[in-house]
Amino acid sequence: MTKKISKSVPQPTIRRLPSYLQVLNELKNKGGSYVSSSFIAGQLQLEAIQVRKDLSATGVTGQAGVGFDVAELIKHIEEFLGWDNTHDAFLIGCGNLGAALIGYEGFKDSGLNIIAGFDVDKSKIGKMFAGKLVFDLEKLGNLVSRMHINIAVLAVPPRQAQDAACYAVSCGIKAFWNFTPVQLEVPEGIIVERVGLESSLAVLSSRLKEQLKAEKVKR
Amino acid sequence: MTKKISKSVPQPTIRRLPSYLQVLNELKNKGGSYVSSSFIAGQLQLEAIQVRKDLSATGVTGQAGVGFDVAELIKHIEEFLGWDNTHDAFLIGCGNLGAALIGYEGFKDSGLNIIAGFDVDKSKIGKMFAGKLVFDLEKLGNLVSRMHINIAVLAVPPRQAQDAACYAVSCGIKAFWNFTPVQLEVPEGIIVERVGLESSLAVLSSRLKEQLKAEKVKR
Repeated sequence: MTKKISKSVPQPTIRRLPSYLQVLNELKNKGGSYVSSSFIAGQLQLEAIQVRKDLSATGVTGQAGVGFDVAELIKHIEEFLGWDNTHDAFLIGCGNLGAALIGYEGFKDSGLNIIAGFDVDKSKIGKMFAGKLVFDLEKLGNLVSRMHINIAVLAVPPRQAQDAACYAVSCGIKAFWNFTPVQLEVPEGIIVERVGLESSLAVLSSRLKEQLKAEKVKR
Repeated sequence: MTKKISKSVPQPTIRRLPSYLQVLNELKNKGGSYVSSSFIAGQLQLEAIQVRKDLSATGVTGQAGVGFDVAELIKHIEEFLGWDNTHDAFLIGCGNLGAALIGYEGFKDSGLNIIAGFDVDKSKIGKMFAGKLVFDLEKLGNLVSRMHINIAVLAVPPRQAQDAACYAVSCGIKAFWNFTPVQLEVPEGIIVERVGLESSLAVLSSRLKEQLKAEKVKR
């Protein structure tokens, strides 16, 4: 396995890396020590050339006939994604979705650890969600600087999203994982990655509606 | 407000419609009866022309100087998305993420109602998650046909995703909301919409890593 220093890596590649990690970790748990790009590809319904290109973009190439050392490749991808250092994050907005997010332990495997929640709702402040305390949003600045937090998971109602984001930036937050439907306006250098669960559901519903209509016509 | 029959509507438009609905519902709750595209745009940090184009693509145009009737516009968008009839759905895979999804009531507002879970893990079968029963995956076919379910929310481990999808299709499932990282291979006419939470997190982490590195260099 040889490594090169990586330049800017395309987003579609980055989006596929977590699934490679899942395949690799599973293989490692089963005692596998070497892996081919075709094996990874086969597990994920991808082309082997795609996997090779993606891994090569992160600066790593396998040995011909041997493939990749599983443990090294895991380490390399985790380093590349910054998942070797788990990022602590704050959740802003502890409604239904927020509660589901704060309770989901699986993000830890992807390097994200939500350590506390924030809300403006007095009935939620001081309560625990899945063992994490909910603070008054007013305390955000204080805790961001004391605990050196960079990431906020944003799950407030849409109308509050922009204000909450501006406030969080003023408190020192550098990156948002945005679960609201709002396209946030943020200063240069601040990162926003939007998830869009409801948009995804909208696409699903409207495609299903069309499909069912088409099937009716056929009958 | 005039309506035209809509043709094929672009996916980016469909992805924005849920946020329009959120703005409209909020306005309706406050007693608003008419709304302009600029108002909707302002609430969501979009251009007014974008909102007008999107609404027009769904077959509706506002009246000059008056705008849109709020209640009619809500009805129109909900009809367009198929959210006027809530879809019942089954969850396949009741691990951490599955448990969070089954417990999240918010999807109901987007027309999705997860009514039961399925798993192969004997320790989960027969248990309740957030008031919903977990069945043996073997019972899927029986329940899909008895309850006329079209949608499966897929939250199984990656290596089981393709098999679970094939099995679900054989049971009569027509659409997947896919929370696994696997690009599913499905027969023609079967719909797959993938969410990719971990991919989204990967993009966030790697961008933050680059940003923090750049800031270090500047200092």
